[in-house]
Amino acid sequence: MRLSQYFLPVLKEKPAEAQVTSHALMLRAGMIRQQASGIYTWLPLGLKVLQNIQDIVRENMNKAGCIELLMPCIQPAELWHESGRYDAYGKEMLRITDRHDSQLLFGPTNEEVITDMFRNNIKSYRDLPKNFYQMQWKFRDEIRPRFGVMRGREFLMKDAYSFDIDQASSVASYYKMYEAYIKTFKALGLCVIPVRAETGAIGGSLSHEFHVIADTGESAIYYDERFEILADDLAGDMDLMRSLYTAADEMHDEVNCPIDKHQLRTSRGIEVGHIFNFGTKYSVAMGALVTSAKGELVPVEMGSYGIGISRLAAAIIESSHDEKGIIWPEAMAPFKVSILNLATDNVECNAIAEEIYQILCSEKIDALYDDSDARAGQKFATHDLIGSPWQIIIGPKKAAQNLVELKHRATGETEDLSPEIAAKKLIL
Amino acid sequence: MRLSQYFLPVLKEKPAEAQVTSHALMLRAGMIRQQASGIYTWLPLGLKVLQNIQDIVRENMNKAGCIELLMPCIQPAELWHESGRYDAYGKEMLRITDRHDSQLLFGPTNEEVITDMFRNNIKSYRDLPKNFYQMQWKFRDEIRPRFGVMRGREFLMKDAYSFDIDQASSVASYYKMYEAYIKTFKALGLCVIPVRAETGAIGGSLSHEFHVIADTGESAIYYDERFEILADDLAGDMDLMRSLYTAADEMHDEVNCPIDKHQLRTSRGIEVGHIFNFGTKYSVAMGALVTSAKGELVPVEMGSYGIGISRLAAAIIESSHDEKGIIWPEAMAPFKVSILNLATDNVECNAIAEEIYQILCSEKIDALYDDSDARAGQKFATHDLIGSPWQIIIGPKKAAQNLVELKHRATGETEDLSPEIAAKKLIL
Repeated sequence: MRLSQYFLPVLKEKPAEAQVTSHALMLRAGMIRQQASGIYTWLPLGLKVLQNIQDIVRENMNKAGCIELLMPCIQPAELWHESGRYDAYGKEMLRITDRHDSQLLFGPTNEEVITDMFRNNIKSYRDLPKNFYQMQWKFRDEIRPRFGVMRGREFLMKDAYSFDIDQASSVASYYKMYEAYIKTFKALGLCVIPVRAETGAIGGSLSHEFHVIADTGESAIYYDERFEILADDLAGDMDLMRSLYTAADEMHDEVNCPIDKHQLRTSRGIEVGHIFNFGTKYSVAMGALVTSAKGELVPVEMGSYGIGISRLAAAIIESSHDEKGIIWPEAMAPFKVSILNLATDNVECNAIAEEIYQILCSEKIDALYDDSDARAGQKFATHDLIGSPWQIIIGPKKAAQNLVELKHRATGETEDLSPEIAAKKLIL
Repeated sequence: MRLSQYFLPVLKEKPAEAQVTSHALMLRAGMIRQQASGIYTWLPLGLKVLQNIQDIVRENMNKAGCIELLMPCIQPAELWHESGRYDAYGKEMLRITDRHDSQLLFGPTNEEVITDMFRNNIKSYRDLPKNFYQMQWKFRDEIRPRFGVMRGREFLMKDAYSFDIDQASSVASYYKMYEAYIKTFKALGLCVIPVRAETGAIGGSLSHEFHVIADTGESAIYYDERFEILADDLAGDMDLMRSLYTAADEMHDEVNCPIDKHQLRTSRGIEVGHIFNFGTKYSVAMGALVTSAKGELVPVEMGSYGIGISRLAAAIIESSHDEKGIIWPEAMAPFKVSILNLATDNVECNAIAEEIYQILCSEKIDALYDDSDARAGQKFATHDLIGSPWQIIIGPKKAAQNLVELKHRATGETEDLSPEIAAKKLIL
């Protein structure tokens, strides 16, 4: 993409309304703009990040055997009366009356709708287990929306729902998703800690939250030091990972903690995923029954599994930035490389920049070519701010020797290379 | 995808609530289920069609230089007071009050939000022209939702908005989109007629609707017979296409029609796209001003451009089906091919079906492998119903001679081929 054809309204100053770094950087990098309290427009750069996250999550959900569908944003209130949550959910639920005085709501979560879909279409153990997921904009009317999209009102969530014939199979489905989540976050370039959690309004008894560690995290999390010591090895040994002590703040009890306090780590975390096994809470209330192998009608066993897609965009920035701006993991970077042409009035610079841009386009590498007439300092600031993992910098002196500078955003390391070799390094 | 791992709740009978063919077929093929009046869940097969349409529309919008972003579903009412449309829009707009008594609405269209985004971020003619688009779920509280997703309340729309410094440039942007629309619908495998239309609630003076011809269409459309006679050639001659007489029902005036009635064709059409040039209606009302080359502050010239993504899924079915079910154009088919293993207890059939399935998967051809133990007649009915463009049918007699049957859904033509050659025909 040529910057002259794009829309990247970067801001030089930190906006006054931003209390946390990710919010400030998302505004400054031209990723989002607020439309109303807790409600945002995703500008082109921000939307690309959301789409990249969605692609990776979708790929990993499909690999885990989940089936994608899409439920509506607007739900009938009657389903929530059936489950008993209409009154229980409180003011966070955006309640709506249509022109015929029907009671509707903007879905904050989808247990009711998926249970209704299930009971109308699936009747036998032969069709189980099943796991359905969707990526959908949801609404929770937070009393105090803050921190940008981290705690917004309209947000994009991946939510999945598992259906099993009995509890043992349901718990197996739960841990299959636990493992799929570890793989998904790894594919996103993130290290997460899964901690035992309370189930709250969703219900049930088995639950884990997945946290990105960041000093600005809203929650305290507690976990066995081996999560840090073993790190990557743990992903290959799920049994070990699951056996280690972890706890969300409200689950941790210092007095009765089963591990020695010297082995216990505490961090601040940002919750980016949450999984629940809640048994038959909704299937009993709503009559989602299936015929078992013995011919008996039994309520289906369920779980639900969320990933905060839009929140992830902010969480990643909290955990990966420096004083100059965002540092994107490659997997979700909006552009893998920025091409900085420092002298658009110089014939050699233009020729080299065009050549590199054409090579990268033909190889389907997402490159942002800064062909604007801004001065060099401003270009450096812009591309450090938006955080492309790589920069190819083309200035007159080096261009005269047929050289460009390849810069790695995370480390700041640079190399002088021929244009062809610089382009090749990005294609590998 | 193996059918045993998938979710395809087909219905044998035509559901009583379906008044039109596309609605009946979408329910029967397990594409959608109604959640509330005019509000649907998109089941896996339906969602795949939506995603395929979105991919093709996105590719064509990007080619036309449009930039994708995403506005929120929920909009603040105050923007609609600024434009003067809050009261004018009537009961079709779903009005919402949040917990702090703020007036919100579920966006039926986005001229106000995009104009607000524009005025806050773009100030100079140097940044023009620009065309922003999104694909977003919208809500219009139809008094009588009907015909399934054809006239639903919650619907997926691609909407684009152009911004230009003067009227001449704005009209040029309009016709650039007109051409992009012709190309987009062609890429979807559809023949559409663009007809001159009234502008209604959006405003302005220049407007075209794009119609798929179908006997069940809600609108009458009028056009020069050369649209049918020249057909494909017209797409290569936009000047000629634009010069031909066309009119939506409310624009057609029999007495003053400029062409001879023998040259005039009339059809029923389903509106799948609508484009508008409305000048400065919103920019004047909302103060979206830019500095011109002369240094003057002028209101920006705008247009808007919609494609009904979810409606398209139904419109295509109306225009492409037979008594057995849907006939998908390849570009948007949920599965390019169904593999029908007619005897899952037969070793040779299983081996051949598996082999073909593996070849197609490795070539990233979207195949639905019917590995269920349903009887042959039921499998034929299911796959004719869901409309995969191709079927590979594997039965014991032919399998013993290492042959399969390749069937073309649209023509019903069949060929006996070796498994390898049948697979190869689909890869080409």
